[in-house]
Amino acid sequence: MPFVDVIARKRDGRALSREDIDAFVTGVTSGTVPDYQASALLMAIVLKGMDERETAWLAEAMAQSGERVDLSDVPGFKVGKHSTGGVGDKVSIVLAPVAAACGVIVPKMSGRGLGHTGGTLDKLESIPGYRIDLSIGEFKQVLREVGTSIIGQTAALAPADKKLYALRDVTATVSSIPLISASIMSKKLAEGSSALVLDVKCGDGAFMKDIAGARALATSMVGIGTQAGVRTEAVITDMNVPLGRAIGNALEIIECLDTLKGAGPADLTAVVRGLATRMVMLAGIDGDEPDAARRVDEALSSGRALDVFARLIERQGGDRRVVDDYSRLPSAPGREHIHAPRAGYVASLHAEAIGRASHALGAGRSRAGDAIDHGVGVVVTTAPGSAVRAGDTLLELHHRNGRNLEAAMALCREAIVIEDEPPSPRQKVLGEVR
Amino acid sequence: MPFVDVIARKRDGRALSREDIDAFVTGVTSGTVPDYQASALLMAIVLKGMDERETAWLAEAMAQSGERVDLSDVPGFKVGKHSTGGVGDKVSIVLAPVAAACGVIVPKMSGRGLGHTGGTLDKLESIPGYRIDLSIGEFKQVLREVGTSIIGQTAALAPADKKLYALRDVTATVSSIPLISASIMSKKLAEGSSALVLDVKCGDGAFMKDIAGARALATSMVGIGTQAGVRTEAVITDMNVPLGRAIGNALEIIECLDTLKGAGPADLTAVVRGLATRMVMLAGIDGDEPDAARRVDEALSSGRALDVFARLIERQGGDRRVVDDYSRLPSAPGREHIHAPRAGYVASLHAEAIGRASHALGAGRSRAGDAIDHGVGVVVTTAPGSAVRAGDTLLELHHRNGRNLEAAMALCREAIVIEDEPPSPRQKVLGEVR
Repeated sequence: MPFVDVIARKRDGRALSREDIDAFVTGVTSGTVPDYQASALLMAIVLKGMDERETAWLAEAMAQSGERVDLSDVPGFKVGKHSTGGVGDKVSIVLAPVAAACGVIVPKMSGRGLGHTGGTLDKLESIPGYRIDLSIGEFKQVLREVGTSIIGQTAALAPADKKLYALRDVTATVSSIPLISASIMSKKLAEGSSALVLDVKCGDGAFMKDIAGARALATSMVGIGTQAGVRTEAVITDMNVPLGRAIGNALEIIECLDTLKGAGPADLTAVVRGLATRMVMLAGIDGDEPDAARRVDEALSSGRALDVFARLIERQGGDRRVVDDYSRLPSAPGREHIHAPRAGYVASLHAEAIGRASHALGAGRSRAGDAIDHGVGVVVTTAPGSAVRAGDTLLELHHRNGRNLEAAMALCREAIVIEDEPPSPRQKVLGEVR
Repeated sequence: MPFVDVIARKRDGRALSREDIDAFVTGVTSGTVPDYQASALLMAIVLKGMDERETAWLAEAMAQSGERVDLSDVPGFKVGKHSTGGVGDKVSIVLAPVAAACGVIVPKMSGRGLGHTGGTLDKLESIPGYRIDLSIGEFKQVLREVGTSIIGQTAALAPADKKLYALRDVTATVSSIPLISASIMSKKLAEGSSALVLDVKCGDGAFMKDIAGARALATSMVGIGTQAGVRTEAVITDMNVPLGRAIGNALEIIECLDTLKGAGPADLTAVVRGLATRMVMLAGIDGDEPDAARRVDEALSSGRALDVFARLIERQGGDRRVVDDYSRLPSAPGREHIHAPRAGYVASLHAEAIGRASHALGAGRSRAGDAIDHGVGVVVTTAPGSAVRAGDTLLELHHRNGRNLEAAMALCREAIVIEDEPPSPRQKVLGEVR
């Protein structure tokens, strides 16, 4: 069938066949489907949608467009993890060692941060010497020895997704749940895990602003995983306020270490415990949720999870002494504080504004390839929900030589919502899709 | 504004500004808006539409993208004409001389046929020597001397439309009333007439299959003309059965000559009279419709319209002796007849199938640049509506050496609908938009 007929079918709101979708993805990869046809089809998909089967076929075809990681020679049950990204989202860095300490094998390929949400790779690279560019052979060796490894996605993974994403970015075809979920899942399927947990962020600081959108994205991704034979579960977690207290690369590594030592903020600890429990169950280590939760708690309280992280750092070339000596991590010498403008309760702390403030200070990048400052960032000194007096310190900015400090402070002030009444308690986990 | 934001605006169903549309058209013309962005926007326009103002801005911007014909040094009131194309549609070739004989200046730039509908240029080129490639200077000289000239559209006219049309053709973005009407009207506006009559064909053999679609297209085109200051009227005419009795290039020229001599088929004569009357009124020659209609009848009955056509042929290099000697036109020697399969009434004669039969015999082209056979075609020997006995001849095929004859005959048989009851009389003019 001529490709223009495939475009016409979607334009008319009809479902594409598996052959249509394979022709699209292989054509885009090889260049036989020109960009102008691909972008017309992408716009038709944005406006007419795709059903669950089409979306799964698209993800599978994109996964098939490049290298697929074969983890069959790594013993144990492999459970992957993905987050749709948020402000202060350092969950993977804590979760992977915790789940590995429970006996789950956690292969993790991550992306870099862009815009106001940070990236796991950037945070890990604030640890002196940590290498994110292991070969697949090295990656598997670390998995065998440590139980987890966290590296960058290789360029050979799902090249069709890379090409389509670049095209979507310049043709206003990013905002489509089937396209977003197929893009994410194509890489996850190519990474070769046997099961997956997904953390779909929802709120002001996330890509999905409302629960309906987040649930639709979660449902779509779980559907893709299931159709591809990879048992997949999603949790939807709140991203109206930053997760944890630290936003910024080295600052977040410190918070991860604190959490692995049992001294982390309650919200981060709760999200990690919930996801780790599901990973233990998906791996078949425990059949009951209470047993799995106990195993997770024990991995944390015994210090075994912290030890896994220390070994992970070491095996990937990093300085494991950072675990006990935070002064070995990059820092920014400047400090500035944001104070409560009046008495009341901290009703909210808009995640996006805080993310942009940290970005302004130098913690994030605007374009792929930009250099970032691992030391700068924002620390939440008074948690949302707390009662405050006028003048109490709410936020601490870590800046370098005042770089973009005024803009960051303005964003921080915008982020703060003080009210007279205490806010109702926030649920961190908003829903689950299994 | 980055062009991706223009695409996003239309994707979200919002109206584009004049600046957005100018940026689109100039960007497409100059190449600074790449094809993949243009096709994404085109698909968003197909699916989200454009309002009357956006459509008129698009037509105007495309007209402005190339050469505009300046007819100000040709005396008289210029009224252009366009048809959306149908089977047996030879109206322009009769209408232009009739209107010119009434004192209207009729500049006409036409296209070639593609698919099952024929093209005015192909029909005229069956007259030995007739040149369709006059320069603009020659075109204007013929207009001054004869009152009408019919030539091919120059490549310099509305280049943005040519580029966009080529892109639409391969990205399934043809079927959009705003895009179709802006495409047609961009060329009409560039041709420089002061007023326009449009013949929007509706039915089985036309691009627009139903009256609602035809009316929407007519309304859109009239809106563009009006907004551009060109007084524009449209008639919607039936194209469920072929117009007139002849389908095929030289066969249609013979029918045109017969009609100019007062011996043409009633449907063709009626459409020509209706449109010519409107052109006379648009030109301000007569204020009342009955006066204008009398003037048109007189132009026909006096032979002055036929004389205009003879002079037009001569001034454009053709052999004017064809007017009295049809044997000077190309012909195909083979004859084959299609007979009524049973007694009854000819309830219909599907225009598209007849058009495809003529095309199969060699009268049309499948690709731009294909050679065509000016002699072949189909003649309707028994008009739709007539009572017939089994075995009566309904159609006469003019073929060359049996080329594709079986396929053409099968199409002709498919086209015929015989019923027991006489069909209700068909209206040829289905509506008007002024």
